Amino acid sequence: MSSEGPAAAGAAAVGVSPSDSPAHEPHSGPEDLPEARGDGAPGDASSVEEQFTVDFCAPLAPEDMVVQTRENVSPTKWHLAHTTWFWETFVLREHAPGYEPIDDTYAYLFNSYYIQAGERHCRDQRGYISRPTVEQVLGFRRHVDEAMHALWDEADDATRQQLAPLIELGLQHEQQHQELMVTDLKHVLSVNPLRPAYRSGLAPPEGDAPPLAWHAFDEGLYEIGYDGDGFCYDNEEPRHRAFVEAFELANRPVTNGEFIAFIEDGGYETPALWLSPGWATVQEREWSEPFYWEEKGGGYVYYTLGGERPVNPDAPAVHLSYYEADAFARWAGARLPSEAEWELAARSHPVEGHFVGEERFQPV
Amino acid sequence: MSSEGPAAAGAAAVGVSPSDSPAHEPHSGPEDLPEARGDGAPGDASSVEEQFTVDFCAPLAPEDMVVQTRENVSPTKWHLAHTTWFWETFVLREHAPGYEPIDDTYAYLFNSYYIQAGERHCRDQRGYISRPTVEQVLGFRRHVDEAMHALWDEADDATRQQLAPLIELGLQHEQQHQELMVTDLKHVLSVNPLRPAYRSGLAPPEGDAPPLAWHAFDEGLYEIGYDGDGFCYDNEEPRHRAFVEAFELANRPVTNGEFIAFIEDGGYETPALWLSPGWATVQEREWSEPFYWEEKGGGYVYYTLGGERPVNPDAPAVHLSYYEADAFARWAGARLPSEAEWELAARSHPVEGHFVGEERFQPV
Amino acid sequence: MSSEGPAAAGAAAVGVSPSDSPAHEPHSGPEDLPEARGDGAPGDASSVEEQFTVDFCAPLAPEDMVVQTRENVSPTKWHLAHTTWFWETFVLREHAPGYEPIDDTYAYLFNSYYIQAGERHCRDQRGYISRPTVEQVLGFRRHVDEAMHALWDEADDATRQQLAPLIELGLQHEQQHQELMVTDLKHVLSVNPLRPAYRSGLAPPEGDAPPLAWHAFDEGLYEIGYDGDGFCYDNEEPRHRAFVEAFELANRPVTNGEFIAFIEDGGYETPALWLSPGWATVQEREWSEPFYWEEKGGGYVYYTLGGERPVNPDAPAVHLSYYEADAFARWAGARLPSEAEWELAARSHPVEGHFVGEERFQPV
Amino acid sequence: MSSEGPAAAGAAAVGVSPSDSPAHEPHSGPEDLPEARGDGAPGDASSVEEQFTVDFCAPLAPEDMVVQTRENVSPTKWHLAHTTWFWETFVLREHAPGYEPIDDTYAYLFNSYYIQAGERHCRDQRGYISRPTVEQVLGFRRHVDEAMHALWDEADDATRQQLAPLIELGLQHEQQHQELMVTDLKHVLSVNPLRPAYRSGLAPPEGDAPPLAWHAFDEGLYEIGYDGDGFCYDNEEPRHRAFVEAFELANRPVTNGEFIAFIEDGGYETPALWLSPGWATVQEREWSEPFYWEEKGGGYVYYTLGGERPVNPDAPAVHLSYYEADAFARWAGARLPSEAEWELAARSHPVEGHFVGEERFQPV
Repeated sequence: MSSEGPAAAGAAAVGVSPSDSPAHEPHSGPEDLPEARGDGAPGDASSVEEQFTVDFCAPLAPEDMVVQTRENVSPTKWHLAHTTWFWETFVLREHAPGYEPIDDTYAYLFNSYYIQAGERHCRDQRGYISRPTVEQVLGFRRHVDEAMHALWDEADDATRQQLAPLIELGLQHEQQHQELMVTDLKHVLSVNPLRPAYRSGLAPPEGDAPPLAWHAFDEGLYEIGYDGDGFCYDNEEPRHRAFVEAFELANRPVTNGEFIAFIEDGGYETPALWLSPGWATVQEREWSEPFYWEEKGGGYVYYTLGGERPVNPDAPAVHLSYYEADAFARWAGARLPSEAEWELAARSHPVEGHFVGEERFQPV
Repeated sequence: MSSEGPAAAGAAAVGVSPSDSPAHEPHSGPEDLPEARGDGAPGDASSVEEQFTVDFCAPLAPEDMVVQTRENVSPTKWHLAHTTWFWETFVLREHAPGYEPIDDTYAYLFNSYYIQAGERHCRDQRGYISRPTVEQVLGFRRHVDEAMHALWDEADDATRQQLAPLIELGLQHEQQHQELMVTDLKHVLSVNPLRPAYRSGLAPPEGDAPPLAWHAFDEGLYEIGYDGDGFCYDNEEPRHRAFVEAFELANRPVTNGEFIAFIEDGGYETPALWLSPGWATVQEREWSEPFYWEEKGGGYVYYTLGGERPVNPDAPAVHLSYYEADAFARWAGARLPSEAEWELAARSHPVEGHFVGEERFQPV
Repeated sequence: MSSEGPAAAGAAAVGVSPSDSPAHEPHSGPEDLPEARGDGAPGDASSVEEQFTVDFCAPLAPEDMVVQTRENVSPTKWHLAHTTWFWETFVLREHAPGYEPIDDTYAYLFNSYYIQAGERHCRDQRGYISRPTVEQVLGFRRHVDEAMHALWDEADDATRQQLAPLIELGLQHEQQHQELMVTDLKHVLSVNPLRPAYRSGLAPPEGDAPPLAWHAFDEGLYEIGYDGDGFCYDNEEPRHRAFVEAFELANRPVTNGEFIAFIEDGGYETPALWLSPGWATVQEREWSEPFYWEEKGGGYVYYTLGGERPVNPDAPAVHLSYYEADAFARWAGARLPSEAEWELAARSHPVEGHFVGEERFQPV
Repeated sequence: MSSEGPAAAGAAAVGVSPSDSPAHEPHSGPEDLPEARGDGAPGDASSVEEQFTVDFCAPLAPEDMVVQTRENVSPTKWHLAHTTWFWETFVLREHAPGYEPIDDTYAYLFNSYYIQAGERHCRDQRGYISRPTVEQVLGFRRHVDEAMHALWDEADDATRQQLAPLIELGLQHEQQHQELMVTDLKHVLSVNPLRPAYRSGLAPPEGDAPPLAWHAFDEGLYEIGYDGDGFCYDNEEPRHRAFVEAFELANRPVTNGEFIAFIEDGGYETPALWLSPGWATVQEREWSEPFYWEEKGGGYVYYTLGGERPVNPDAPAVHLSYYEADAFARWAGARLPSEAEWELAARSHPVEGHFVGEERFQPV
């Protein structure tokens, strides 16, 4: 059986994935949204960001957008409605005096974890809700979008100053849900024995693995945590100092081919490679390969948003749980980087590009 | 909390409801379908019966037809496909040599309990399957329908003689699923906090309760079980003799008003009125009124396919579990009829009319 | 895996086993105990019956008497205390004015299903209760026993007349729990990998199967239900008439050897032999032989109170669930008798002997 | 409802409690026991340590020592047998050539998590095992004890050198289980509605809280982890450097009185004080006070090994989960110390005394 979990991240991306329910942050008090830092003016960014949310749905049938295959996999329709609800609840209801909601029940149906924003519909029953239909949700979205533009257009500078951080936060929230939409849809389509592709013509997962090499980092007392002027989440703060011993980090993610070597060396059958709860999980869930993988005809295939494909040995190994990544690292004579090590190594690289926007779906 | 279960039958209909998985029959062996008796020629009946299945869906959005709200509530789309699968599997694949299936995976996806017809997709995961879409399922249905008509039109008399019982069985199967479609859809729409109606303009549940009176029946040795020339299910056989003591049966179903008197007299809080597993169920599920009922504003409302309505005190009490019907009867100083008593009382009445066909949905 | 359930009855004894929670009877109201009919004077019977309860425990260690291996398996200590509680609650507290309980908490701890007698301790947590110890429970028992004898000795004729049915009921209750004690202890000892015997020197299960023959019974209208002057349970009433078609019943129980033939003919792998929920149970619990059986060294062994032994092919097949008995009967071209048929066949035989008293433990 | 978990540690002791299944260590490979460092000669320590294990049981009835009240609460009898099994398996079977086990089944029954030492009996079914009895287990213990002494007495210096670390490890293992025995027994007795005391005459929990003050620590790069010559567990290594910002730590544990202030200020009803999974736990388990506490008569009582007592406001607050400790700290305007901070603060204090040995049971 393959290991489970649509939320499992790629080996190279273990760490700071934005999540719908950030486990390491206390619940917000009555006043505070997830706290935003940064005040960049939205300009047209808003429309661009939001547009992806809708465009992504174009190849889907309404049926695809209703299904919930497990508690932490929300229907696409719910994501569309929830992100819209966010704008309505935290911007329009608070700052646009004449705003008229389409339906007051939506505030209850599409709330997620914001306890201070009122009662919410059970998370594991989002897939029971056939109405509002996709078409009605898109209408809700247009209604809110127009009100958002009207609000901004009519706002004076002082108001814009006040609205900017909220809008920045809404855009970040939208991006989080874009990631989740793709992640969740993949699970929905994958459980269907027909193994449908999200859309035809998607390129297979890339594979361009350079030879493995190691980057060395010196020991030292480093500053860790967000330090810029722009937006960051509260769990990226506070800036603090951490002592890091000298270490080396691989120059690229682990590949599928390397992970197959781990499997074929009995990785999933060797208790000594696993943390204790990891080994318990391997046994309980009968893991024998990564999530979405299947042994077939002497090799491995995996489900991708382009359909079922042979596993590309040069592509990064993704959809690994923390336990699998940890066991692999131990097997390979290494270990996973700490948060501080990872941040230290990653921060020298420019942040650019947009995985889902470029339809590089495989890592999700 | 209201008692549970879309499968709960009306108090007056406790007994022989045809069911998707007949609990009291052994599993069929390799050759046998659920055994049909009867050989009426199908004529146009087929199209009429089948047409209801499709027409019923007209007011629904695709989203409504995908959702599964509990294990024994199948999506409308699944019913559409499964009844079509029945014709394909047991008639066309067996008797129409040139028949070409649209998709071989359907045989796996839309099989239900016919173990001898191959593996089937898990019953509790029918709501995970977004594809084939409703549109594709309707295409599957048209494909099969045309093949069925072609088969019949080209058949000689001997072949028609052979096909007739199979077609009769298929029509009965179709009717069973029509009942289930309505029953299941009611549950799907009811769990939505928006409480949508199946379609607008449905009449409220009828109420025309005559005064309660009792019909007397003499003791005697009666013949019980099917005795005609037409179709019957195997659990209506064999014809056998049963001795029935003299008894009296009410002239009409229990009304909602009478059931409210039971509630208000503490029926749900009085262990002595309940069978032991019934009382355990009342406590475990916190039953305090019938399924689909809710106390509201000092009275009761219930969800109907026309939306939420005040409980009509003159309408028959429906959606009662066996335990509730039994407890009510004990409270009323009576008891439920045995199967033989019920059959004896009911058989003098002509069988005519078609509840769902006439949109008298409330008893379902 | 062997089929489950210490409560499973022998094939020949399917039917009217007295049970701790009679499923087909409504819960008693405030006044009524399980209703006794009959008024035989207790004489010394009381002591004899009760004495078995204590004597049975002699070969046991205190540790054996505390363990609860599943919800419906009560510790021996609990049975000892609960039967004592019965005398205290329904006789002494009601009819012996000066009676002083040892500990008021016992009324809560050792109540079972008599809801009208007050709150009770959770049934699935009886095995959590180490105190009162076995020794203390035996002290409780002596205390109550002495009070019972004093009450009887000092009672005048009118009082004895009043007490007699209560005492008769208490003795029947005691006998029920003697059966349960043996049944439950068997389960407790069986799950221990050491497979300890209840005591050494117990004879192996008897096997003296005569050739299979069939007794014929004529069709007729028979009276069914208890008709004597002595004690009976309320579910043996009311006396009523039942029409029974002519039938034949085997002259002896099914033997282990016959059941092995069923197994070896693929009985547990043939869906068509099973009722639908029976087959679901076979698959869910992975049944492949009767409860307490195990395949070993090319044959079968079973756990008995004398320890693990080879299955005796001539001994009656016992510990079969209803589903297994039903499937066996179908495989054998027969069916299980109805309640009326069984009563008709059994009532011509004298009721004598006492299985557990004679240490014929295997059928329990 | 009070919060759950016998394993919950006192607020002042959050951190490094030795545990039966150390979650953060990979499973041992084929050769390695939990790795011991240190080589102190056992001398008489062995007997002293072991003696406590047996002496602790003196006030208990055999019944108390069999019960398992939840998966992670093992019966006292199991602890007695398991610690004995440890000596037999890792010392006697390996190093005492003529050693004769009493019963080979014990190796299976009393193995715990040492996967490399063979299959083990299911952890959640330890309470099903009535035999060997307590008396037999004590016999097993004497048998092994004598063999251990014989082995040591007859060993030459080289052998003793080799045995010493193993014996040290066995003693540490014994101490761990002494802690667990007390912890587990407390749970077993607490669920009994009789609320029995472990033994009479135990002193109530001490309360001698000095006024709250704060110790200041300077920022710096500190060495963390074990650095001595004696025994340590592998999760106390490797020694490494950590940068610690300046911080202050309270001079004493939080008191019950301070925790009551948290409760009365609505601590258990304020989501913003809790980590997200903590708040989910509060709701799911309906926590409203610490484990073992109960509101009674306008105040609080708690179960202690001396029976139920009024909560002493000056005694340290114990049996708090991590989530409760964290929420309390946030409410108090503080936070929990990190592992490095705690180690830094604690290491200046001498390690002496023995809580259970001195019957200061309350913190367990």
